[in-house]
Amino acid sequence: MNTNYLKSTNILMAQLNPISGDVEYNKNKAIETIKKAKEKNVNLVVFPELFLIGYPIGDILTRYPYIAEKAKKALDEIKMYCDNIAILIGYPEINENKFLKPYYNSMALIENKKIIKSIRKSLLPTYCEHNDYRYFEPWVEEFENRIFTLNNIKFGVAICEDAWNDFDFFEKNLYKIDPVEKIAKKIDVLLCPSASCTRAKKEQLKHNMMRHCAKKYAIKYIYVNQAGANDELVYDGLSRMYNEQGELVAMAKSFDEDLAVINLFNGGEINPLPKGLELTLNSQKEFSLDHEPDLERTYKAIITAIRDYFYKNGFKQAVLGLSGGLDSTVCAVLLADALGAKNVFGISLPSKLTSPESKNDAKELADNLKINFLEIPIKDMCDLIKDKFGGMFDEISKNWCSRYTNSYTNDNIQARSRAMILWGIANEYGALPIATSDKSELYMGYATINGDMSGGYAPISDVVKTKLFALARWMNKNREIKNAIPVSIINKPPGAELAIDPNTGKPLLAEDALMPYEFLDEVIWRIENLNQSKDNMLMQEFQYEKKNKINKETKQKWLDKFFKRLNTALYKWYIVPPGPVIDARSINKIEYKQPIISNIDYSN
Amino acid sequence: MNTNYLKSTNILMAQLNPISGDVEYNKNKAIETIKKAKEKNVNLVVFPELFLIGYPIGDILTRYPYIAEKAKKALDEIKMYCDNIAILIGYPEINENKFLKPYYNSMALIENKKIIKSIRKSLLPTYCEHNDYRYFEPWVEEFENRIFTLNNIKFGVAICEDAWNDFDFFEKNLYKIDPVEKIAKKIDVLLCPSASCTRAKKEQLKHNMMRHCAKKYAIKYIYVNQAGANDELVYDGLSRMYNEQGELVAMAKSFDEDLAVINLFNGGEINPLPKGLELTLNSQKEFSLDHEPDLERTYKAIITAIRDYFYKNGFKQAVLGLSGGLDSTVCAVLLADALGAKNVFGISLPSKLTSPESKNDAKELADNLKINFLEIPIKDMCDLIKDKFGGMFDEISKNWCSRYTNSYTNDNIQARSRAMILWGIANEYGALPIATSDKSELYMGYATINGDMSGGYAPISDVVKTKLFALARWMNKNREIKNAIPVSIINKPPGAELAIDPNTGKPLLAEDALMPYEFLDEVIWRIENLNQSKDNMLMQEFQYEKKNKINKETKQKWLDKFFKRLNTALYKWYIVPPGPVIDARSINKIEYKQPIISNIDYSN
Repeated sequence: MNTNYLKSTNILMAQLNPISGDVEYNKNKAIETIKKAKEKNVNLVVFPELFLIGYPIGDILTRYPYIAEKAKKALDEIKMYCDNIAILIGYPEINENKFLKPYYNSMALIENKKIIKSIRKSLLPTYCEHNDYRYFEPWVEEFENRIFTLNNIKFGVAICEDAWNDFDFFEKNLYKIDPVEKIAKKIDVLLCPSASCTRAKKEQLKHNMMRHCAKKYAIKYIYVNQAGANDELVYDGLSRMYNEQGELVAMAKSFDEDLAVINLFNGGEINPLPKGLELTLNSQKEFSLDHEPDLERTYKAIITAIRDYFYKNGFKQAVLGLSGGLDSTVCAVLLADALGAKNVFGISLPSKLTSPESKNDAKELADNLKINFLEIPIKDMCDLIKDKFGGMFDEISKNWCSRYTNSYTNDNIQARSRAMILWGIANEYGALPIATSDKSELYMGYATINGDMSGGYAPISDVVKTKLFALARWMNKNREIKNAIPVSIINKPPGAELAIDPNTGKPLLAEDALMPYEFLDEVIWRIENLNQSKDNMLMQEFQYEKKNKINKETKQKWLDKFFKRLNTALYKWYIVPPGPVIDARSINKIEYKQPIISNIDYSN
Repeated sequence: MNTNYLKSTNILMAQLNPISGDVEYNKNKAIETIKKAKEKNVNLVVFPELFLIGYPIGDILTRYPYIAEKAKKALDEIKMYCDNIAILIGYPEINENKFLKPYYNSMALIENKKIIKSIRKSLLPTYCEHNDYRYFEPWVEEFENRIFTLNNIKFGVAICEDAWNDFDFFEKNLYKIDPVEKIAKKIDVLLCPSASCTRAKKEQLKHNMMRHCAKKYAIKYIYVNQAGANDELVYDGLSRMYNEQGELVAMAKSFDEDLAVINLFNGGEINPLPKGLELTLNSQKEFSLDHEPDLERTYKAIITAIRDYFYKNGFKQAVLGLSGGLDSTVCAVLLADALGAKNVFGISLPSKLTSPESKNDAKELADNLKINFLEIPIKDMCDLIKDKFGGMFDEISKNWCSRYTNSYTNDNIQARSRAMILWGIANEYGALPIATSDKSELYMGYATINGDMSGGYAPISDVVKTKLFALARWMNKNREIKNAIPVSIINKPPGAELAIDPNTGKPLLAEDALMPYEFLDEVIWRIENLNQSKDNMLMQEFQYEKKNKINKETKQKWLDKFFKRLNTALYKWYIVPPGPVIDARSINKIEYKQPIISNIDYSN
């Protein structure tokens, strides 16, 4: 190929942030982008997969099929802007065949104000957060159709998952066909329009796979990803180009929108990965408490998730309870950074069990963050309710004999009184209340229904406790205002301050009620990453065991408690508010489903 | 074929109620069944699809893959009971191939204590409540493998969806292959082990399809379905046999377990369909307010759902607020019938807006049902909280200027105080609180978070309001104790009694806050059954319009209000508790997903 063609060919990686289902908004964004691209002498604009309806799409195409018609009309409008420029844009293509699924997941190639052709996705991911086969028919013929010529350069198109089935690279393949293999020898450049959400350890896989492919076929590899967040999924952007040697020669921003122009000969700007993420470029076979390499990504992903969930839903203010504990503290910092301190209202809601230290910590945090702050003691509410309950329970026990001797009723009165106040503020000021449950505690069902686990959004529901501690330290070090989080918050052992431990006379600590978080988080990691049963775990040494002497009985006891609590936590997973998917695997509803009645025996 | 073989062949339709994920429980049930079958001179026992892990399975095979190993071991145990008898039993078969999905959805054929072969499902439903393709690889070769011979009779097997793709019967097909067509001419009897949940209008389709198939190929058609409920899905049983003329010659019970023995020559007992259901045996192109033909099915389905959700989760008692309104009333009756009156606690929770009539109605209902009853006025709680909020809001407004002039804060204080009390009772007595939200109001987001929409189970979340009225009347007529529901409850217009209507000085009525339920329910019906847009609806005449004069502006106003409220209701759908799928289409989470941020324009 004559390198002159490469030198004269500029591509715009349209790394954009669409709103799922809002065709009008996405169409206007596309038109704006095309206009800008023309000013920059761009030859081809590549948009993300399904851009006109955004990812994820849920079941909207099934229930509101006219959305696909709207997307088709939008294409007709967009094409009129495509003079002297070509674009490749994702949309749901209606399948006219009487048989099969009603849509294809397609990229329209538009040139000279004409829709030249549609290129259809072949490999339809249907696992975890992906549900492509619910809506789309796979296209498994005429692979030549994926190729087009522009400026004498041959381009091939692989839509997201289409590029994830290399038979050499993967040990286990999900599909029989590799669409890239079918066309790679006939093309100069592979274009991969995608909607690939951020997850722990995914960057490593993505990077290795893409450079492998570029080298293997000696082609240029251009990956264009979605940016921003829709509900639970966050897209990290990081669109990029690899050259024929598998070297990274351009990389767009992380998480934010970026109209990154690259030249096929020279590449383009190389923006950095979130710091430390290159350290995760080795596959991890063991649980690690060193969360550091994933913290900037985690921070940015949650900030993006909060910002987009609020703004896209028309909210700008958040309200949350500040207990002086780790979970609400981390949430407050993230909210302040995502929404601006003035849009966050932190309410300290002390009960009679709340220690003066916790109250001070909450106040100090709010001052440091410069968020709005108020202290509303809940003693009066709790006293009245407890009193009321006393008489009521006496009445009920006349008819119902099965009263628990050791219930959580009083603990929950406190948590629910707090939520009552937060939702009151939410209703009165149009703010979103925040659910502060973390992943470790959700696994254990250690959260109060209509209490701390209620809210409009749950920012840290996919972050385990040990990682939250690391994130708190990281934020103290890396935010513009250093050490906003009082060290006493990070150093004290977590506890809900809802009940007194009869053994110590002090508020019950979470690790006493549950088990050490270092152990707990490794159980979660082994379930999600290794699919291990209880028996497997019993036989293998935990990181915690390397540092602390525990006997077999203790380990057995903790594991028994874990899996028993897990079975009763499923209902809470069903009703927990949406929060961003962060980890390699999650229990967020968009990804994971388990019947509540399932009485699984986790031994094998 | 010699009819002697038919005369001597008895088949047991093992219409059983498994627990999703509980292999041990399901295995024991299978062994019990085989033992009983042997006593009854049965030649072949047919179990439902995937019986050893139960339906629905969620993502348990993905996260806990050792469950498939357990099922395999269970088969090895079960086969030892299969001397002098053959069985066909559903299980997840591990796919050893490096490529493709990790499992097949298979039926094991066991005879003489040996697993003879596995027959694999070809058509994998992946829409609505179905997610087969998330886990299973379709089997699309060697269709002969589906055939086996017993007593000189040739049996063919089609697993659930395998039998739902007849090219003559359906106008639109979802798959290119019809597995039944591939084998029908080589067999005498088609066996269809299934896990097919009950839905409005499905019986009609099922019946017509099955008899069509039996007649078309002149074969016997035996359908064996799951019974009982797991979380949101209810299985109506009604296993059956059609003869070569397409006549129904045996039918097992509806909803309950039934070990129904049929003789291939003589058929078997024909149990009745839920009354009136045969009247739905015509396809319905228009919305109808005549819910009568679907009421017995609806009643039985919800009773089954409640019973199994409670028992399988280890609960036996329910607690609910009795407002004297329709929703809580219908829930109370259903709970009493499902769990026994003594296990239900109805609490009247009057605020100062609650009318004496409502209080009396609640009391009278509880008396009639003989459920436990208590009246707990909430005025003290509401007053204290309102008072507390007053001071708090004054403080907050010093910093935050955006206070709403017309918020729902006070309405919600009442709803949340009630929920606080119900959850307190739940915690203290190990009872499940009930969310009483109905489908019409969920569509409108007319429900309070942490208030009436919170609970452990939501029995009527897939029943629209006009149908609830009909169901209340039906229960008054058809339950053993007649007229348990005071007519005043059925006759009064619904209203939450949370706020005063400034126009009338009386509590605000729901139809004034929303729109007439007859209109509202037809909008829902048109969305779910016809996928209509707002524009379509504007152009077509509603049933409501045939009886009531409304002008175009009013209709436009109602539709605008509907779709505006719908967009803001999505968050509530995300956190509403599980409830049984009843309608032809639903918004229950197991079926329908829509991004909360989706800002859909419902016009076209």
